[in-house]
Amino acid sequence: MRMRNKPWAMDFLKENNHIVDVDGSYKNNIKEFFNNDNDIHIEVGTGMGQFITTLAKENPDINFVGIEIEKNVLIRVLEKVLEEGLTNVRLLLYDANLLDEYFNEDEVSKIYLNFSDPWPKNRHEKRRLTYESFLSQYKKILNDNGTLQFKTDNRGLFEYSLISLNQFGTEFLEVNLDLHDEEDEDNIRTEYEEKFSSKGFKIYKIVIQF
Amino acid sequence: MRMRNKPWAMDFLKENNHIVDVDGSYKNNIKEFFNNDNDIHIEVGTGMGQFITTLAKENPDINFVGIEIEKNVLIRVLEKVLEEGLTNVRLLLYDANLLDEYFNEDEVSKIYLNFSDPWPKNRHEKRRLTYESFLSQYKKILNDNGTLQFKTDNRGLFEYSLISLNQFGTEFLEVNLDLHDEEDEDNIRTEYEEKFSSKGFKIYKIVIQF
Repeated sequence: MRMRNKPWAMDFLKENNHIVDVDGSYKNNIKEFFNNDNDIHIEVGTGMGQFITTLAKENPDINFVGIEIEKNVLIRVLEKVLEEGLTNVRLLLYDANLLDEYFNEDEVSKIYLNFSDPWPKNRHEKRRLTYESFLSQYKKILNDNGTLQFKTDNRGLFEYSLISLNQFGTEFLEVNLDLHDEEDEDNIRTEYEEKFSSKGFKIYKIVIQF
Repeated sequence: MRMRNKPWAMDFLKENNHIVDVDGSYKNNIKEFFNNDNDIHIEVGTGMGQFITTLAKENPDINFVGIEIEKNVLIRVLEKVLEEGLTNVRLLLYDANLLDEYFNEDEVSKIYLNFSDPWPKNRHEKRRLTYESFLSQYKKILNDNGTLQFKTDNRGLFEYSLISLNQFGTEFLEVNLDLHDEEDEDNIRTEYEEKFSSKGFKIYKIVIQF
């Protein structure tokens, strides 16, 4: 997600270093960042943060980590966290390609991917967050019962991901090819999801285990 | 698929015993029925037969076997085979639950499931043609490079099948969640497919290997 550059963004993030890690300070040490032993759920690519902040509000006993490489996006999430006064959210300005360097093995209970960039061109396959190199990392940092939940409105990306997840050897626990047709009350919509679902696009969802 | 009972149906099938096997005469002996060694493709549940007869016309060097338990349906397929003068189609009035008793191991190159009955109630799961007991049979009769292709317009059945096929350990080769959006010219539509696609229903397709 691209946003207009805001010169003050980095300063704003750094000022809030009790919530945001901009330089990997808590690498291999995320528990200290939270200062408790609660379960850790991460969202790779936060978008504007509606998803993670809603989840965090509803689940005060879970630690949520939002990971986003784009500082002009991450400030929007930070604003929400501050507004809501959430104490169980931390934000990383960080490259998802290096997830397994940040988190320890078996440290994460749940990974969320929401409306990730589809990278539709074949030559960009390796950038898709369900490409095998990312799956290897998720597998490493997730604990034994850990699950990955992936939602998208992009048919091509979902078709690709079904094959990629299957061929990687993950176990499908749940598949939904039209999430809002019979929406369960637990579904938390992202901003993007609301916009596209209201235009009649189908929302796809899968939950898997490694 | 239910059709009005036609008292003459069984006689008509039996009269054409060079095409139709009504009583398992060619069990474990399908090659003799064709009298050649060509590859064998089977369709489990033929419906009205448009799919298998079109495929057979386009692929004279492949042997096609249509399997259908309902005699009032199978006569419609037989009529098409006779009309077209197809010599590479055989029809079995047979229960798909006993496929591995009819075919030998590794004897089949491709299995087609088209718009199978969705059996939406949980208590009928075992009747779905992608239930694990059926998958075990397909695996047994397919040869090493053999594939299974499944098409349906039923979202619930497709969601179920993605999970069932994944959990059985099959390898996904191809997934399409809206077949007619960018239809490849190779797609052969069934009667049912034409009717439902024209009403705007999505057609789902998957190709897997065991």
